[in-house]
Amino acid sequence: MNSLLKSLSLAHPIIQAPMAGVQGAALAVAVCNAGALGSLPGAMLSIEALDSELAALARGTAGAFNVNFFCHTPPEFDDTANAAWLALLAPYFDELRVAPSQVPTGPGRMPFSAESCEVIARHQPRVVSFHFGLPKASWVQRIKAWGGQVWASATTVDEARWLQAHGADAVIAQGLEAGGHRGHFLSHDLSLQMGTFALLPQIVAAVNVPVIAAGGIATADGVRAMLSLGASAAQIGTAFMLCHEATTSELHRAALVGNTHTELTRLFTGRPARGIPNRVMRELGAMNPLAPSFPLATQAMGLLRAAAEKNGASDFSPLWSGQNTSSCAAISAHEMVQRLTASN
Amino acid sequence: MNSLLKSLSLAHPIIQAPMAGVQGAALAVAVCNAGALGSLPGAMLSIEALDSELAALARGTAGAFNVNFFCHTPPEFDDTANAAWLALLAPYFDELRVAPSQVPTGPGRMPFSAESCEVIARHQPRVVSFHFGLPKASWVQRIKAWGGQVWASATTVDEARWLQAHGADAVIAQGLEAGGHRGHFLSHDLSLQMGTFALLPQIVAAVNVPVIAAGGIATADGVRAMLSLGASAAQIGTAFMLCHEATTSELHRAALVGNTHTELTRLFTGRPARGIPNRVMRELGAMNPLAPSFPLATQAMGLLRAAAEKNGASDFSPLWSGQNTSSCAAISAHEMVQRLTASN
Repeated sequence: MNSLLKSLSLAHPIIQAPMAGVQGAALAVAVCNAGALGSLPGAMLSIEALDSELAALARGTAGAFNVNFFCHTPPEFDDTANAAWLALLAPYFDELRVAPSQVPTGPGRMPFSAESCEVIARHQPRVVSFHFGLPKASWVQRIKAWGGQVWASATTVDEARWLQAHGADAVIAQGLEAGGHRGHFLSHDLSLQMGTFALLPQIVAAVNVPVIAAGGIATADGVRAMLSLGASAAQIGTAFMLCHEATTSELHRAALVGNTHTELTRLFTGRPARGIPNRVMRELGAMNPLAPSFPLATQAMGLLRAAAEKNGASDFSPLWSGQNTSSCAAISAHEMVQRLTASN
Repeated sequence: MNSLLKSLSLAHPIIQAPMAGVQGAALAVAVCNAGALGSLPGAMLSIEALDSELAALARGTAGAFNVNFFCHTPPEFDDTANAAWLALLAPYFDELRVAPSQVPTGPGRMPFSAESCEVIARHQPRVVSFHFGLPKASWVQRIKAWGGQVWASATTVDEARWLQAHGADAVIAQGLEAGGHRGHFLSHDLSLQMGTFALLPQIVAAVNVPVIAAGGIATADGVRAMLSLGASAAQIGTAFMLCHEATTSELHRAALVGNTHTELTRLFTGRPARGIPNRVMRELGAMNPLAPSFPLATQAMGLLRAAAEKNGASDFSPLWSGQNTSSCAAISAHEMVQRLTASN
């Protein structure tokens, strides 16, 4: 058993990836109680919901758990850019009979903040993981002060070194296969992003902290392969998306089954994230530069999504998925952890 | 020992990837004599050179060897497209004092042909591998008639199934990490391309023929990881590029050392291939749509490359590389095979 697993008393080298929008505490609790590390995605929760979900986690499991946040810098709202974006979407607003004036002008997703830090301090999760870098040093220190571990995603060797230098207790090597948001933060050049198999050993060689492999891992063989390449654990998301405890929508579940095509898109949030191609990605181009900066793109698309989903269409839904859906199954998270840790 | 290794009497589950432009028979011979499978890239050889290189291979080793070909359909020469391409490159022709009129109008790289089939029939290599699909059925049958195995690259599960259905004896699962040309042939949509770690197990599950893993593999641990995911062998290119027996140019060797950034580009040949970003990729955009169809882009760029290399500049050179250069070393191919097969 390696030091990472020992420090968290984990029976299995499996981290359930935090997946905003398709799960809450229930999935994390089930994973924790199966001997792996469950994760709560904090990115889309209000302060109140964050508090109650963390309370549910603490009630539900005696084990360690992880809470995850984005730590982006919210962009300035840009009227001109927003007008161009709404003009691009205008035919869809017409088609779905939604008034563009209904688009909220708020910030979309909030980054990790003083308030979030305050809330999690009450629950003292054993792990707090971050996407898009790390929050400010005083918050990192506060987490460490209660014995919490601070983890963050690296998509390049440079990012892994940066995270270690800035106090990360473990680095999540996020290969290009992974579903959802790419975690890059030092450069927005997507050509720097590597496949898991190239990225993991290079990060393992570059840092001294434990490395968690993410991206494309879907089987017990895959977990073992990652451990043999120096990973301390494997972070797995997609395989859990059909689990009973996930809140994945029926439309999203249907899209995942047997799917082998995913693509990076910035249409839904403004940052590149991997999902299953749908109508809006095909029609506007998945990486259309008119989508406003993260997370401002969420607002208009969210309205269209809600209207389309009422009609049973996933035309505007972010169908996040990694490149390997082959292990997705409508089973309990407990059974999925058992499958992912079965011996040969 | 699995059936693929047994059928070729290989001591090690390593295929040295065929790398046109940076190696000939010498590297392949050295690899074969180290107990792995050496490969001769046929794509850039004249019929005469192909014959003499195959003769050199047969003289140099008693072991099995592989000869590799592209099997694209040569495009029609398009005057308008060519003029636009030359106009884009005009400032470089001026700068390097090369006359665009010197650009050859020939086909660039030849696909596998009746002539190539004739030549290899004289040497009866144990393996003939293909990129961009398979050649016509009668040529596939001819190779099989002398006991040769026909292998081909698959970049998607669909391509793997297609290759098996069309008679491939083994499928090379080429993950997105791999250097050089992407082997896709059923679709040109690059978003269908997967990382090795997602692609390999899905192909292993989809076909019955042996699967060879390619892309990002650079260490003995990596080879073992691929075998544990169901691969019969690992095809490795980048790690051999600094070997004494490779003909990699000094400029290319210098660029490979310590490099962590590669990108897909169609500037050098017209088809996407992974290489180290250089001046022309940065200035024109690596995937510039004005580069003519494969392999017509090779001609003008080849002239610029030759002129620039005379000045010691790799500004116009295709610096092919996979995403993992960490094991590149200026050692013999024999020692590299030993490193790639060392036990823990």
